[in-house]
Amino acid sequence: MEIDRSLYVTTTLTRATNGTVAVPRMFGKIALEEAIGTNLWAAYGTLPAIEQVSGYAGVPFASSVSADIESRLTDIPARLQSMDDSGIGYVIISLTSPGIEGVFNATNATKLATEVNDEMYADYVEAYPDRFGFFAAVPMQDPMAAAAELERAVTQLGAKGALINGYSMIGTPDNYTVQYLDDAACDVFWAKAAELNVPIYLHPRPPPPSQQLLMDGYPMMAHAAYGFGTETAGHALRLMLSGLFDRYPSLQVILGHCAEALPFLVHRVDTRLAIGIEGADGPYNKTMKYYLRNNFYATLAGVRRLATVRDTIEEMGEDRVMWSVDYPYESNEDAANWFDYVEGLGVRTKEKLAWENAEKIFNITASLNSYQDDQEFL
Amino acid sequence: MEIDRSLYVTTTLTRATNGTVAVPRMFGKIALEEAIGTNLWAAYGTLPAIEQVSGYAGVPFASSVSADIESRLTDIPARLQSMDDSGIGYVIISLTSPGIEGVFNATNATKLATEVNDEMYADYVEAYPDRFGFFAAVPMQDPMAAAAELERAVTQLGAKGALINGYSMIGTPDNYTVQYLDDAACDVFWAKAAELNVPIYLHPRPPPPSQQLLMDGYPMMAHAAYGFGTETAGHALRLMLSGLFDRYPSLQVILGHCAEALPFLVHRVDTRLAIGIEGADGPYNKTMKYYLRNNFYATLAGVRRLATVRDTIEEMGEDRVMWSVDYPYESNEDAANWFDYVEGLGVRTKEKLAWENAEKIFNITASLNSYQDDQEFL
Amino acid sequence: MEIDRSLYVTTTLTRATNGTVAVPRMFGKIALEEAIGTNLWAAYGTLPAIEQVSGYAGVPFASSVSADIESRLTDIPARLQSMDDSGIGYVIISLTSPGIEGVFNATNATKLATEVNDEMYADYVEAYPDRFGFFAAVPMQDPMAAAAELERAVTQLGAKGALINGYSMIGTPDNYTVQYLDDAACDVFWAKAAELNVPIYLHPRPPPPSQQLLMDGYPMMAHAAYGFGTETAGHALRLMLSGLFDRYPSLQVILGHCAEALPFLVHRVDTRLAIGIEGADGPYNKTMKYYLRNNFYATLAGVRRLATVRDTIEEMGEDRVMWSVDYPYESNEDAANWFDYVEGLGVRTKEKLAWENAEKIFNITASLNSYQDDQEFL
Amino acid sequence: MEIDRSLYVTTTLTRATNGTVAVPRMFGKIALEEAIGTNLWAAYGTLPAIEQVSGYAGVPFASSVSADIESRLTDIPARLQSMDDSGIGYVIISLTSPGIEGVFNATNATKLATEVNDEMYADYVEAYPDRFGFFAAVPMQDPMAAAAELERAVTQLGAKGALINGYSMIGTPDNYTVQYLDDAACDVFWAKAAELNVPIYLHPRPPPPSQQLLMDGYPMMAHAAYGFGTETAGHALRLMLSGLFDRYPSLQVILGHCAEALPFLVHRVDTRLAIGIEGADGPYNKTMKYYLRNNFYATLAGVRRLATVRDTIEEMGEDRVMWSVDYPYESNEDAANWFDYVEGLGVRTKEKLAWENAEKIFNITASLNSYQDDQEFL
Repeated sequence: MEIDRSLYVTTTLTRATNGTVAVPRMFGKIALEEAIGTNLWAAYGTLPAIEQVSGYAGVPFASSVSADIESRLTDIPARLQSMDDSGIGYVIISLTSPGIEGVFNATNATKLATEVNDEMYADYVEAYPDRFGFFAAVPMQDPMAAAAELERAVTQLGAKGALINGYSMIGTPDNYTVQYLDDAACDVFWAKAAELNVPIYLHPRPPPPSQQLLMDGYPMMAHAAYGFGTETAGHALRLMLSGLFDRYPSLQVILGHCAEALPFLVHRVDTRLAIGIEGADGPYNKTMKYYLRNNFYATLAGVRRLATVRDTIEEMGEDRVMWSVDYPYESNEDAANWFDYVEGLGVRTKEKLAWENAEKIFNITASLNSYQDDQEFL
Repeated sequence: MEIDRSLYVTTTLTRATNGTVAVPRMFGKIALEEAIGTNLWAAYGTLPAIEQVSGYAGVPFASSVSADIESRLTDIPARLQSMDDSGIGYVIISLTSPGIEGVFNATNATKLATEVNDEMYADYVEAYPDRFGFFAAVPMQDPMAAAAELERAVTQLGAKGALINGYSMIGTPDNYTVQYLDDAACDVFWAKAAELNVPIYLHPRPPPPSQQLLMDGYPMMAHAAYGFGTETAGHALRLMLSGLFDRYPSLQVILGHCAEALPFLVHRVDTRLAIGIEGADGPYNKTMKYYLRNNFYATLAGVRRLATVRDTIEEMGEDRVMWSVDYPYESNEDAANWFDYVEGLGVRTKEKLAWENAEKIFNITASLNSYQDDQEFL
Repeated sequence: MEIDRSLYVTTTLTRATNGTVAVPRMFGKIALEEAIGTNLWAAYGTLPAIEQVSGYAGVPFASSVSADIESRLTDIPARLQSMDDSGIGYVIISLTSPGIEGVFNATNATKLATEVNDEMYADYVEAYPDRFGFFAAVPMQDPMAAAAELERAVTQLGAKGALINGYSMIGTPDNYTVQYLDDAACDVFWAKAAELNVPIYLHPRPPPPSQQLLMDGYPMMAHAAYGFGTETAGHALRLMLSGLFDRYPSLQVILGHCAEALPFLVHRVDTRLAIGIEGADGPYNKTMKYYLRNNFYATLAGVRRLATVRDTIEEMGEDRVMWSVDYPYESNEDAANWFDYVEGLGVRTKEKLAWENAEKIFNITASLNSYQDDQEFL
Repeated sequence: MEIDRSLYVTTTLTRATNGTVAVPRMFGKIALEEAIGTNLWAAYGTLPAIEQVSGYAGVPFASSVSADIESRLTDIPARLQSMDDSGIGYVIISLTSPGIEGVFNATNATKLATEVNDEMYADYVEAYPDRFGFFAAVPMQDPMAAAAELERAVTQLGAKGALINGYSMIGTPDNYTVQYLDDAACDVFWAKAAELNVPIYLHPRPPPPSQQLLMDGYPMMAHAAYGFGTETAGHALRLMLSGLFDRYPSLQVILGHCAEALPFLVHRVDTRLAIGIEGADGPYNKTMKYYLRNNFYATLAGVRRLATVRDTIEEMGEDRVMWSVDYPYESNEDAANWFDYVEGLGVRTKEKLAWENAEKIFNITASLNSYQDDQEFL
């Protein structure tokens, strides 16, 4: 007795599909890692050496993809339509990577940050207060100026916090220093963030050129598809190890991409630190696990895998994880279709990730959502 | 700042949906709890007192539903079409509940079982050897006859084992005794099953009328939607407690519906038995957990909930769980759409549940399946 | 090359163990299904026909076990010591099953309930306000009296709600009617519970004798170890199907033992109801899944299996699940050792189950708990 | 009513514990990432520039820890005692990192590899055939010599495969090139591994010095505790992207530490590659997810976190995941106590991870293990 499966699978199928299922849309979702572009960049001769979209952060996008993304970065009506189509009610926007952090000159960075924040406020938040909030850009090249701009953005423009694209390169394209956020000079900025009680989103950027020497050809692809996250995870660990969260216990940092795999790895980082690495008794007092579940939020930006989300929730708690997209680098529709349909998180957990957590953390007042009453997963 | 979710959710929506996603079909699935009807029943004046389809096992199906199910029980072309549409390659059929177990007279039961087995073989297996196998019907009213019929069906007709619908009611509709499968008289049957090395599918039937006294109105619905499974789970526990699997350690019993919630509950059954219930040191030597993961298989018949499947796998091991439908009481398409699309089991686990386990357990030789090579879940 | 495992496993080992691991105790846990006995029973000639401890609810405990449980039911110092040893800070006590529900005469039931509530208040709550709260006993044989006693217990004695042991048997031991809580007569009680905004704990009792006819010998054990829960789950489904939670949407019912397997099964109950069972369009408006995650809490009483707890959380949400023991029928130490040590729930989830949810639901004000700060799972 | 938790938690507690639980030991476990040291190193003036133990691969171990590890690397009786104490039946040893890969001169590397393999065979495998197997060291500085040595080790000494510590540095300490395993020159080695049908264990080593420029002070700790794994994960992605597994579809690579977080991240790597990164249509034909679950095994070396293991199993399948320790960098006892006790994997899954998978993959014939029969998790 033999089944001839060749009857059912034609040789030309690569993604065999012969049906569709309806997506029970979760309306009113909130998204947090959503990039915008700005025409302001073009006005400055001091454009970042690493280009913003084409060749984004060192990623060699195919030109057709690049043009599409570039267009979507600034097209507000298309963005709103896409949000409507995928059940996204509210988005917190931010300047696309490398953002202000890609500016070498500190004075330029400060001036650009102010202008970009004003533009985000005027074009998005003021124009569509029910649909958009924003994370401020801050000139970390001059941490005191960054603190001042954060305060202005939060208190005068209603910014929900700031988004920072990793380290800063300070100087000129030919002669610069790399400054991570655990640098002592940045303390004044963190003090202000703690005082204002707003979270800081730590967004990836590619490793510094000095650490990319071996990357060319297909290794470059491994880098583009994988290396971003590890650079950001390392950056987050530096913050923890620097004692930042012992100095400012209420400080909150947001990481995208399910916290850049730290939930999967943090237990081993702690055990390695505990076995006697010299100097591992640094200026921090708690375990990395403790910081991760007390001083960090995670978003699902770019993540469409259930086990990754479950793993993240188990480590950080379901009250610290929030859905997001990474638009326009990812598709609103794909992200929403995956999340709205996926089983294995539980209805209450999905509601928290979709909007409830973000409403609390960012003081977003939402009208009654009828999802819970009207929809069932059978 | 307020989101007006009412913009997105119209008041008339009850299952808000505004999109669909494609199902990456897993072709070649195997299903094991698939009921057929037979015209032979009509030939006997000794029809079971509990009717077969209309009023199935005491469940008051609405008449339209009842008629549809009755039609699908015997329509082979429609069954094959539905299998094709939902990627089902091979099905092991069995006589629908209450089956032979609903016959009061032992002689009639024996005669009927033989005829039904011959009919299943001729109409399904011989006619479509690549698509159908069958579980034999056995007249447990006369266990020795049941053993003989099992042997005949397995050795002469290639039956994959037998399916039994719970207890038997022996005697007449007005005067009968209830015989569970742990009755000493049934030992001769189990000995034969062990000797032939074929599994026995223990299928639900409603609790005996004597235990349904308080069920009427909506309690009847709770019963119909819930009570079946508990009766079967209790029956399975009786088998374990009787020492059956100590006498025949290689014996294998199949339970549908993710083993009727025993995976969820069995640990507590064991702890209750361990704390000193009088007589709990009965004729069995192992824990219920041990029997469950060594002497039982579970199918997903009727189950479309990820957490239930994960729970079952964690208790019994992924090599002992198999997909199924419960056609025509459930929809092939619904069951396939859910399973083929669901995340959270892992690709390899899904392949085992979909066909790999069944191929091994029932010696089904399948041609190469290209699912693994051609499909990816992103 | 062959490993001789017999070198490591001696033939006499049945639970091979050669080490121990330390339990990182979670201090300050709260437990909710904790039974007490009372000497008041002895004062009445109208004792329940089903005895209270010896032969508890039909369970034939071995006499040594029975004596030990009987002793622990009333020994307050031993209870407190055990709580201290296992890190339990606060317990909500209730009268052990079958409790007031085992009294046939309604007048006696009402009198007994009042006296038992006064005794629980005086001996436990007033004497140890930092360690004990209580669920009132209520005479459901006379629902209006039950409503009145609930109001008195809550408003005058600070009861946290009531605990009910399933159906009532009203009449005499020889001639009684069985009354489930979905009976129309009980509506006055549910209205009062909703008005007072206190939850009702629905505790198991054995199926009525009329449904136990086939249970003897080892089947009795299957019943004792398994049947309780199914009776309670069926009772909960009756409440849902009766439209109770449509009439009182804020009403909350607590189920022990991880909601008696309903999380595992409820999706299938809903699909069965949806396929057209006659009359399934009863007086209820929502799915069973909806009621379960909006009108029910679950406790872990008696449960020491991770997959069961995870399954329950996935269905009901982690804010609706609470740790408990079922003392003295279960061991405080065993329950605490299992829960405090178990991985796989996440630290934040464990904190919610251990105390955070109960603090909110029962308005228990707890002093700062240092668990989170001082303990890490590595 | 207030709980004073301070009664239970003394201020001096940092790991509050007041009990222990017994570990039900799983006897006969097999471990695969177990390092040994060798005196042969001392005989060569061409010692690797990066030292072997003290200052292991750039990790600044405290000197007391370093001395202890150094001692345990070569103490065979202590190793055997520790294996006995923690229920480890069989270990596949390998030369500790950076191993042969740390040798700059190719001729020296080849000579050393041969001598080390002979020593591992004589001192461990021949002396204790029931307790030890070994992974060969291979001189990847000369891939043809590596292929020859692999063949000699496998066919003459019974090596179970080879273990490679990442990239090679070829030349002199002052002037070297870095060669990853996807280099075309290495193809001859992979061809031999495929021909011999033995797996290759890809073990971490620190990133090349040229990529460590920004690492000093506590960032060094982040690097030591985190960076190893990311370097190895990147290396594995390079192998996939190079088309290696399209050229040799049967080739198998083992990754430690639950596959270095690739299970958590691989879905996003695939989606990034799919959205149009220029050149992403390289010499590979399948998704990274496909390669991961068809050409890789994962071990638990260094991992004691349930969610990490579950996540790995979900991606790779439970037949491709194996327990391990990373002795002496990790403790056999800690690893065994965690694994033997942990719930949430299921008994059958634990048996596969503990020994069953390794027995099949490495053709280890084990005598009957009585764990399954004698032990239960209640």
